[in-house]
Amino acid sequence: MIRHVDVPVLVEQTRAGMPRAIGRAVSLVDDQHPALREIMAALAAHTGGAHVIGITGAPGVGKSTTTNSIVAALRRREKRVAVLAVDPSSPFSGGALLGDRIRMEEAAGDPGVYVRSLATRGHLGGLSVSAPQAIRVLDAAGFDVVIVETVGVGQSEVDIVRLADTTLVLLAPGMGDGIQAAKAGILEIGDVFVVNKADRAGADATVRDLRHMIQMGEGTAPGGWRRPVVRASALEGTGVEETADAVTGHLEWLARTGTLRRRRTKRAGDEVSGLALAQLRARIGDLDAAGSLPALAARVVDGALDPYAAADELLASIGAGTG
Amino acid sequence: MIRHVDVPVLVEQTRAGMPRAIGRAVSLVDDQHPALREIMAALAAHTGGAHVIGITGAPGVGKSTTTNSIVAALRRREKRVAVLAVDPSSPFSGGALLGDRIRMEEAAGDPGVYVRSLATRGHLGGLSVSAPQAIRVLDAAGFDVVIVETVGVGQSEVDIVRLADTTLVLLAPGMGDGIQAAKAGILEIGDVFVVNKADRAGADATVRDLRHMIQMGEGTAPGGWRRPVVRASALEGTGVEETADAVTGHLEWLARTGTLRRRRTKRAGDEVSGLALAQLRARIGDLDAAGSLPALAARVVDGALDPYAAADELLASIGAGTG
Repeated sequence: MIRHVDVPVLVEQTRAGMPRAIGRAVSLVDDQHPALREIMAALAAHTGGAHVIGITGAPGVGKSTTTNSIVAALRRREKRVAVLAVDPSSPFSGGALLGDRIRMEEAAGDPGVYVRSLATRGHLGGLSVSAPQAIRVLDAAGFDVVIVETVGVGQSEVDIVRLADTTLVLLAPGMGDGIQAAKAGILEIGDVFVVNKADRAGADATVRDLRHMIQMGEGTAPGGWRRPVVRASALEGTGVEETADAVTGHLEWLARTGTLRRRRTKRAGDEVSGLALAQLRARIGDLDAAGSLPALAARVVDGALDPYAAADELLASIGAGTG
Repeated sequence: MIRHVDVPVLVEQTRAGMPRAIGRAVSLVDDQHPALREIMAALAAHTGGAHVIGITGAPGVGKSTTTNSIVAALRRREKRVAVLAVDPSSPFSGGALLGDRIRMEEAAGDPGVYVRSLATRGHLGGLSVSAPQAIRVLDAAGFDVVIVETVGVGQSEVDIVRLADTTLVLLAPGMGDGIQAAKAGILEIGDVFVVNKADRAGADATVRDLRHMIQMGEGTAPGGWRRPVVRASALEGTGVEETADAVTGHLEWLARTGTLRRRRTKRAGDEVSGLALAQLRARIGDLDAAGSLPALAARVVDGALDPYAAADELLASIGAGTG
């Protein structure tokens, strides 16, 4: 598990955008390898250049197709694009799901595109720790855009907001009318909405509903971002450039209003807290393995100690007593 | 939010099984009220008497009906039974979902049954902190059995195992054949399986598949628990006593083999760790509110500090530095 890593070389090659080095660095993130601390320290000064776009939506809504067409549109605009596929809902399947697609993309041989899935190998902290680190690697590798695509549903839609500068929510006629979207909490998280499969019956109603729900939920604050609803159809080949315009326009708005820095500060705060808590969980895990947590727990089972008093003892044991 | 609580009176009345006091105590758990520390200390010596049974299964499988019939069967055996309904998947809906059912049960006026849903009002730690505490209250209130019923699906099925002495998994023909159950990770968590709606077509196949999958996954260790598969039909009124026998038999097995104490020690360890981490998260939340976490995060955004170095600073700020 612990392999030797030549950090200076890896950092240099990652910064130079060499796919093998990038892949190696993301694998170290997957493994939460001890060398990450040094790697992240070396990459820190070279981050912040990438526009992080989160893409989410219910299964069947056409996420992969949309991601692919956005990648193509951004490539036509000469942006270097990395795609990070994340499945927070199934820690055990890891990155296997996307294996075929990754091979396909890599086979296309465009050096301006990098596609990678992120596993969570059961390490402490999970994706809340590894996803921001993987984004950092891709950011430092010089990609102009990092697309984070969630494979899961539900909580993952909320989590992606914590990672992205711009969140793109996909819907399809019949699946994602306005009221359904509102119920799913999807209206709150989207910066850009794309109604996919717009060639299908009901697309007009979905777009109208969605625009209505968005307007109702929106204040008319000056400088506010008016969240666009884009119609797209892979069949008819429409909506791709409009989608690319919408996300690019959102980035400009973010930068102009100072929202970008606020969002990123919030995101960095979450990342740092996540790392700190992961370290504290690791210390608790050490106590568990060493038998002192089970000994404490046995006293709770016996009724000799209540959970709060036991938690105080545990905190003192990991060097986090209140003093 | 912070109401005055007369802890000695509340503890005495809770221990005496008075419904109003129990309800008040669980509400304090819902709110993570500061008085909980003192309440839990007073109740600690009076816990451990209740058999905690977790009931889980996919939506539509008949969870409410099964819970009700198990409650009735246990009442016929003169057990006092509390039901705690938990929905980990939707923190925002809280306990509202079960309101009608609770009123119905309370209206029945049997003092030997207590039904309560558990909200998570967005407090730190969520159900991993509040669910064990609510179980503690009901345990100390003298209930012989505490049934924890999950309303959600997915992760909640795994989480319930952390709370229960005995986990009962419900399936129905067509929804829950053996292979599906294996995929869902449900085989690993069940101590007792109930195939509900056994009057329906396909029930025989579901039971056979399930038994086969269980056997395949099972070692033949001496003293091992042979996980029963019970057929039940609310329509035909069958399977209820068999289900009650199965869960009671499992408790006897747990106690006889020492597994009960091991499971409870593991559970108490999780509870204590959860409390400790919730306190650490609260300290981080204080730093966030005070502006020092955002200041740290801004340095990360600027690339002046990497996330690991920032996490070290954060840990030092909450009194949890490594040295």
